[in-house]
Amino acid sequence: MSAPKKVVLAYSGGLDTSIILKWLQTEYGCEVVTFTADLGQGEELEPARQKAELLGIKPENIFIKDLREEFVRDFVFPMFRANAVYEGLYLLGSSIARPLISKHLIEIAEKTGADAVSHGATGKGNDQVRFELAAYALNPDIQVIAPWREWDLTSRTRLLEFAEKNQIPIAKDKRGEAPFSVDANLLHTSSEGKVLEDPAIDAPDYVYQRTTNPEDAPEQPEFIEIGFERGDAVSINGEAMSPATILTKLNEYGGKHGIGRLDLVEGRFVGMKSRGIYETPGGAILLEAHRGIEQITLDSGAAHLKDQLMPQYAELIYNGFWYSPEREMLQALIDKSQEHVTGTVRVKLYKGLARTVGRWSDYSLYSEEHVTFEDDEGAYDQKDAAGFIKLNALRLRLLAMRNRRLR
Amino acid sequence: MSAPKKVVLAYSGGLDTSIILKWLQTEYGCEVVTFTADLGQGEELEPARQKAELLGIKPENIFIKDLREEFVRDFVFPMFRANAVYEGLYLLGSSIARPLISKHLIEIAEKTGADAVSHGATGKGNDQVRFELAAYALNPDIQVIAPWREWDLTSRTRLLEFAEKNQIPIAKDKRGEAPFSVDANLLHTSSEGKVLEDPAIDAPDYVYQRTTNPEDAPEQPEFIEIGFERGDAVSINGEAMSPATILTKLNEYGGKHGIGRLDLVEGRFVGMKSRGIYETPGGAILLEAHRGIEQITLDSGAAHLKDQLMPQYAELIYNGFWYSPEREMLQALIDKSQEHVTGTVRVKLYKGLARTVGRWSDYSLYSEEHVTFEDDEGAYDQKDAAGFIKLNALRLRLLAMRNRRLR
Amino acid sequence: MSAPKKVVLAYSGGLDTSIILKWLQTEYGCEVVTFTADLGQGEELEPARQKAELLGIKPENIFIKDLREEFVRDFVFPMFRANAVYEGLYLLGSSIARPLISKHLIEIAEKTGADAVSHGATGKGNDQVRFELAAYALNPDIQVIAPWREWDLTSRTRLLEFAEKNQIPIAKDKRGEAPFSVDANLLHTSSEGKVLEDPAIDAPDYVYQRTTNPEDAPEQPEFIEIGFERGDAVSINGEAMSPATILTKLNEYGGKHGIGRLDLVEGRFVGMKSRGIYETPGGAILLEAHRGIEQITLDSGAAHLKDQLMPQYAELIYNGFWYSPEREMLQALIDKSQEHVTGTVRVKLYKGLARTVGRWSDYSLYSEEHVTFEDDEGAYDQKDAAGFIKLNALRLRLLAMRNRRLR
Amino acid sequence: MSAPKKVVLAYSGGLDTSIILKWLQTEYGCEVVTFTADLGQGEELEPARQKAELLGIKPENIFIKDLREEFVRDFVFPMFRANAVYEGLYLLGSSIARPLISKHLIEIAEKTGADAVSHGATGKGNDQVRFELAAYALNPDIQVIAPWREWDLTSRTRLLEFAEKNQIPIAKDKRGEAPFSVDANLLHTSSEGKVLEDPAIDAPDYVYQRTTNPEDAPEQPEFIEIGFERGDAVSINGEAMSPATILTKLNEYGGKHGIGRLDLVEGRFVGMKSRGIYETPGGAILLEAHRGIEQITLDSGAAHLKDQLMPQYAELIYNGFWYSPEREMLQALIDKSQEHVTGTVRVKLYKGLARTVGRWSDYSLYSEEHVTFEDDEGAYDQKDAAGFIKLNALRLRLLAMRNRRLR
Repeated sequence: MSAPKKVVLAYSGGLDTSIILKWLQTEYGCEVVTFTADLGQGEELEPARQKAELLGIKPENIFIKDLREEFVRDFVFPMFRANAVYEGLYLLGSSIARPLISKHLIEIAEKTGADAVSHGATGKGNDQVRFELAAYALNPDIQVIAPWREWDLTSRTRLLEFAEKNQIPIAKDKRGEAPFSVDANLLHTSSEGKVLEDPAIDAPDYVYQRTTNPEDAPEQPEFIEIGFERGDAVSINGEAMSPATILTKLNEYGGKHGIGRLDLVEGRFVGMKSRGIYETPGGAILLEAHRGIEQITLDSGAAHLKDQLMPQYAELIYNGFWYSPEREMLQALIDKSQEHVTGTVRVKLYKGLARTVGRWSDYSLYSEEHVTFEDDEGAYDQKDAAGFIKLNALRLRLLAMRNRRLR
Repeated sequence: MSAPKKVVLAYSGGLDTSIILKWLQTEYGCEVVTFTADLGQGEELEPARQKAELLGIKPENIFIKDLREEFVRDFVFPMFRANAVYEGLYLLGSSIARPLISKHLIEIAEKTGADAVSHGATGKGNDQVRFELAAYALNPDIQVIAPWREWDLTSRTRLLEFAEKNQIPIAKDKRGEAPFSVDANLLHTSSEGKVLEDPAIDAPDYVYQRTTNPEDAPEQPEFIEIGFERGDAVSINGEAMSPATILTKLNEYGGKHGIGRLDLVEGRFVGMKSRGIYETPGGAILLEAHRGIEQITLDSGAAHLKDQLMPQYAELIYNGFWYSPEREMLQALIDKSQEHVTGTVRVKLYKGLARTVGRWSDYSLYSEEHVTFEDDEGAYDQKDAAGFIKLNALRLRLLAMRNRRLR
Repeated sequence: MSAPKKVVLAYSGGLDTSIILKWLQTEYGCEVVTFTADLGQGEELEPARQKAELLGIKPENIFIKDLREEFVRDFVFPMFRANAVYEGLYLLGSSIARPLISKHLIEIAEKTGADAVSHGATGKGNDQVRFELAAYALNPDIQVIAPWREWDLTSRTRLLEFAEKNQIPIAKDKRGEAPFSVDANLLHTSSEGKVLEDPAIDAPDYVYQRTTNPEDAPEQPEFIEIGFERGDAVSINGEAMSPATILTKLNEYGGKHGIGRLDLVEGRFVGMKSRGIYETPGGAILLEAHRGIEQITLDSGAAHLKDQLMPQYAELIYNGFWYSPEREMLQALIDKSQEHVTGTVRVKLYKGLARTVGRWSDYSLYSEEHVTFEDDEGAYDQKDAAGFIKLNALRLRLLAMRNRRLR
Repeated sequence: MSAPKKVVLAYSGGLDTSIILKWLQTEYGCEVVTFTADLGQGEELEPARQKAELLGIKPENIFIKDLREEFVRDFVFPMFRANAVYEGLYLLGSSIARPLISKHLIEIAEKTGADAVSHGATGKGNDQVRFELAAYALNPDIQVIAPWREWDLTSRTRLLEFAEKNQIPIAKDKRGEAPFSVDANLLHTSSEGKVLEDPAIDAPDYVYQRTTNPEDAPEQPEFIEIGFERGDAVSINGEAMSPATILTKLNEYGGKHGIGRLDLVEGRFVGMKSRGIYETPGGAILLEAHRGIEQITLDSGAAHLKDQLMPQYAELIYNGFWYSPEREMLQALIDKSQEHVTGTVRVKLYKGLARTVGRWSDYSLYSEEHVTFEDDEGAYDQKDAAGFIKLNALRLRLLAMRNRRLR
């Protein structure tokens, strides 16, 4: 593979990716294009532009985009249609953001004629896999540079030396090492490493960044109504909103009530287990509400098939296979199921918990006429149940007869 | 099918099964054997004996058993090894009790020479299916009498008339209709029907029977440590306990902290949707803790296979197929996975929520050496990740090349 | 349920459905509409019209349709996209025809204002389930009359008596009982019952009706090339043909070479096992060829997901759930996978066997450049495999270390 | 990782592994232990011993074992219990042999104090993955040396030069390049590469090595009866035999009748597609017969679960995960299902095709009493089917009502 001439870097403006920027210039001698995205991580983007300029990036090579709506509409919402959780609990907040970033890296590479992309993910984690699988799937000829797997800046001291030597500004609070590592976007904040590395020890309270401690959350529960159309949230308390606005709003509700905290040890795709603290305030509410609306609008045959396939779907996203035919096939199946997942769910928020307490829909499959304990006026003939059970039992009876014969 | 001569009735001692008892005697003219089980429903059993005697059952035909340990050891715990939830939420508290009752009905039938069994489940629900599939699987020649599907006592008035005509004592509070229907055992309490039939309307507070309203739960969180061996809980806070004692104890913790409430619309096996309020205080804690201990002791390949099969396993139990070869096959798979699921989990209980905050085990697969952000002294070579990603990406790149060629 | 006034009968013109026709008139006193479909069963349809008229059906109540193209295009081909086989072997030839017949029964019922449909399937088989589930799914208010489950004409003698009493013509060869029962359509012929009931005993040769005994098939193999577009066969030996024409043609090839015979014991949905002899000459070739074209055009991630879901898809069709949301969801997934399943397969036909021997496509994912044993000029870096294996092995190594620690 | 001191080489005695042997000695300067296994590949092993000695291996470092019984009993038969086929067709003949070889490499390494193992598989194929995953799973500290991924002997010319320079004897027929590459063991022979690389072109006849061309096979069919116990073949035509003897015998039958030829393009784990010609004469018969015995002895609920999981099981074996917890979990599930898979199958062998034509068992679940078209004397009540269908239809009717309401 020939040396890259021009590389698009996923650039946050922080110290680490600034070092990468410089390292790409010096190590590969190549032109660097920076891409900084607003995925709702809660940081201003303009400082990233200034810093990139300071590091010698040409203005036409600096790309800054607000991807929040695209993120929620095309990535978060399709995933939530599946009720996707990884290993029973994790809401995939980091996993779902990576393919979107890669999509834009590749688009910018095509626009600027770059032959490589680069990212700041380490060689131990899942994010490198997610960035790169997406990049290769979208452009099979792209080169990917993952400095953390290549360089010799393997300690904090050496990184800082490199920064100083190359006149990269170092914020005062970055001199010491952070006590843990953070990733954030509109869907979630994750914290890992260092003080969190012993999974036996409770995470210290200061790790949680966007949710109130449930003990400090309001003493009164709050009830909200979330409207859905075809599986996606479209309104809160009757007010229609865009996808990113809804998630932002749900994050406010969830954060206030201490909802969506998670302390998890998970199996990484690269084979090791890691411990993370996740906060997904809006997502936790959304998952609960989506299940609530499916309860009345989704047929149980459809629901059970979705449930059965969800873990594989979640694993595909976790492992970085968003742009794979099997994820797209599963998405087609899931989306097909959501045609009538339309209606409203009432959720109670209180001290860490979001719980469905009511749901209604014009598309409801719930039939009070059938289920009632009262006289159903012939809607359901209880005698049918006898035959239903008899034939469901037949193979079990044949087994029992066989086994008795053999005793 | 010839008329039954002797029938074993699942008898609670309550009004409904007393009416069934009498009805079996008068309608079929057959000898009735009663079976009353303690599954932890929280009612005394001796009154059932007296009432059976009053209704003319011979002492040798009255069977009363405490099944709490068998229930938890052989049914609840094996199911929790699978992290089984039905339709994403329901902990299967009623479903798992039915096959145990049928097992004893069939055993007593064999002991007493009875040719039929009978139960008080209606023709609209799942319980009839669960009782009967289990009965047929254990004795393919048994007859099953389900009075609710047969008789003409289809209104409260007619039931009470029948009771009065047959001198069945009616407790004063049974004159009026209950505002909802309840089923309880050591694992859960479920409430259905009547005031709960509109799924849009919040369940009234008086429906909840064994959990404190989270708003009224203690203001201080409580932390407990649950010990596991081979996937089953064996101790709380270091104190070893029998299965039923552990679940009883967890119910106390959960009840006190308002944990395990659920408002659900579910798809019944017989084809309709129904709304239930479930309380599973100890079970909700147990599920969380079991996931916690699996996080460090179960390999992710094993965990993902379990996750994938869990919905089918849960559906089998929900639908009444406990005694089926496919449930037993899945159990063999699940049990195989639990060989090293041994260790301790620390759970925080607070106002409705049980959350794992720490876990440790001699059997841990978590390797701080591998995952650390610090120097790992060669345990993991980050360069391996490059090849790992390249080959995982190869088929995606071949797809992208093909698709580009066709554009 | 009120008595039906007008009923649409799936009418073959044969003795059994003629008796049903008369029985419906006499038993229910209702107006009968007949529907006779050409699904390629190889019988003329006009005699059915004459017989219906003879039995007093008004001309405007006689419906005769050629459904061969619809059958293959909308039912057989979508199913073959999935490589569907039931219990490893059965190509679902009867199962796939039933929902189509029900669809037309319901359409005719709506057109003629009928409130019921009727069919000639017995109460022991799968076909009753397939007919009726489809009917209910398409019209939830329809009544279904299944005479074999209702009437008392339970022996051959009584059927013939009824026929004679009602002046139904009886063909000479129908006086005695057939040695087995047959169902046929363009996809297959199945034979069941009587002489075939002992699964230990070879089926006599005269049971096979549309395939040459392989021993008598041509001594020379024949090679054909089947063209596919988006998963469906579109041509044979370069000649474009309609779906039904292709299947007809493949049946000729297969029949001549003794291909597609199957002797199977299968598990029926109603709980018992039955033995059938199936002949699916064209279908067997089509399945082999479709697998052949998928081998080069379908990504293995997509193929494995399809393989994993195929048994459930096949079971849904076998059990009669064609018109269910879960079958439609799976179809969406399968169809998504077939977008580039386009190309040509060369199949060798010889004495009972159809075997792919070559395949090519503009959409091929096969890369000789990558796979070659010769110099690949850098397309693939063998060193990548080391990292790939190392990381795939990591969790296995962590398990081995844990287990060694515990020894 | 430190340089290995002693390495156990999977040594065939052929030119390629002899070159590897020498290369390990010269490149790594380490002591080499050779392991040569008889897996039924049809070659004598003693020449391997002599050649190893000639190349300077100490007699105590030469290990030769006959693994045929272990291979069939502990690897092939457990796999056939699952009816495992990869991508619908491939019987996994190479895949299943690799973990066995690794098991012995690791055992010998432990016995001889070696710290590394080595194999002759290339960096493009699946076998490297299978060898190495098994090795790491059995000894997490072992080093693996894969010369084909490391050395610079990348052309035939350079290999021969190296051989000559190191006095490795070169058989005359090895001077030129083989027209394709072969792997063989008791279960199968596979051929790949070179003349087979274009998947559009028929494989030349000389590629097939252990099966008669069907055109040249006997004109008369042959019938054999295979006895099974708990899922494994135990006898042929009533004669009890050991596992390896049975497979050997079935290979003779299959080879004679031209059975088990396969021309396949498959997706490799490393991401590319490859074309192989497989011959599995005995295995093809065994698969057909095992399905035949399962048809009458395995409940359909059990069978369908097995069918559903088979593709994942096969993929695990194909990808080299024999020694993984998830394969062992699936094996526990499969083995559980085989408890009563005992009986006899009659198979017809004729010109390339093995077809079940009869099966019987004391453990049969087939009930002629239930299935019969004749009077069943009340074994089955056809009226039960009405209720069975009605309740299976209920959710479909509720869907139809909902959809109609929305129109």
